[in-house]
Amino acid sequence: MTFRYPNGKPYEPKVEQKKKQPPSITYSNRGMSLEDDLNETNKFYLENQVAVIHKKPTPVQIVNVDYPRRSAAVIKEAYFKQSSTTDYNGIYRGKYIDFEAKETKNKTSFPLQNFHAHQIEHMKNVLFQDGICFVILSAFNQFYYLDSRHLLTFWDRQLNGGRKSITIDELNESGHIIPTGYQARIDYIKIIDKLYF
Amino acid sequence: MTFRYPNGKPYEPKVEQKKKQPPSITYSNRGMSLEDDLNETNKFYLENQVAVIHKKPTPVQIVNVDYPRRSAAVIKEAYFKQSSTTDYNGIYRGKYIDFEAKETKNKTSFPLQNFHAHQIEHMKNVLFQDGICFVILSAFNQFYYLDSRHLLTFWDRQLNGGRKSITIDELNESGHIIPTGYQARIDYIKIIDKLYF
Repeated sequence: MTFRYPNGKPYEPKVEQKKKQPPSITYSNRGMSLEDDLNETNKFYLENQVAVIHKKPTPVQIVNVDYPRRSAAVIKEAYFKQSSTTDYNGIYRGKYIDFEAKETKNKTSFPLQNFHAHQIEHMKNVLFQDGICFVILSAFNQFYYLDSRHLLTFWDRQLNGGRKSITIDELNESGHIIPTGYQARIDYIKIIDKLYF
Repeated sequence: MTFRYPNGKPYEPKVEQKKKQPPSITYSNRGMSLEDDLNETNKFYLENQVAVIHKKPTPVQIVNVDYPRRSAAVIKEAYFKQSSTTDYNGIYRGKYIDFEAKETKNKTSFPLQNFHAHQIEHMKNVLFQDGICFVILSAFNQFYYLDSRHLLTFWDRQLNGGRKSITIDELNESGHIIPTGYQARIDYIKIIDKLYF
């Protein structure tokens, strides 16, 4: 049933209007996040003994905790801390796996400001120890696997006054498009298989 | 100089008395925790490019966050969650490292109730992927490195109705005493070197 304004114009609820927008490459319209997809993927890997990879908890500085009787402790005051590492790590066939996941709504390039100096430093340390280190970039309607060594090259270019982002062409050249699936939604292990085994 | 009571008995200040007690195996008397010592050790490893090993943040379920103007977000309500993994992981010379650290004040055995079924499950998963997985036990005035495979044996014995702890003799037999130092306070990498390289 269509409701109409007194002038005869049909009433369109906001929810309907949203549906008419062009499909977005962000997660906001489908109630799902890159983090959700990766958690589901990692859960599938874990349950099927493919790999053991977890997202690290969000670091929080706890200031005040209340201990009410007979019930759980309640954190009453806490603050978000900046992480000194990447968000995901674990093990696959004996090898150490370490990655960060980021997304952009940009249509032509991936901004490097998505990464922090601490994370870049951590990636360097992991590479020095011969770890498998990469980033998963949700951009241009794809999921890209980009080896951290490539990211470091783009990062250094920025530090030397170069562009502050990775272009779509650069990403297509130096990255790998991750196959998606129903169970392993962002099936990045497939890329690791191709590159390392 | 010795002060004396009127009856001739020497006065002993309380500080002196403390010194006469047997050395304590708990951290409470020296204002330092097992976690502090491990954090310092890992910091030393990181800064000297020995290994990249971090403690995971405490998992917290955030329920309510306040965003006051022009200042940092304040978490107003949150709860501690049980971790589904061990606390420490990282990489050493290409190999995945995973461990949990626990302490006891007991003088004759290490109670298995220090571990949760989730952590045991996680250790099994890591071992299946060929990771280096162990526990660091602060007990009997020592730091022990105990391979998770041994811990699993003791755990299974408990599940089958056996004793609920690891005796000091068992720990001395199946574990390795970790050397301590000024910089690498609990120098567990030395044991990994001995066992794996």
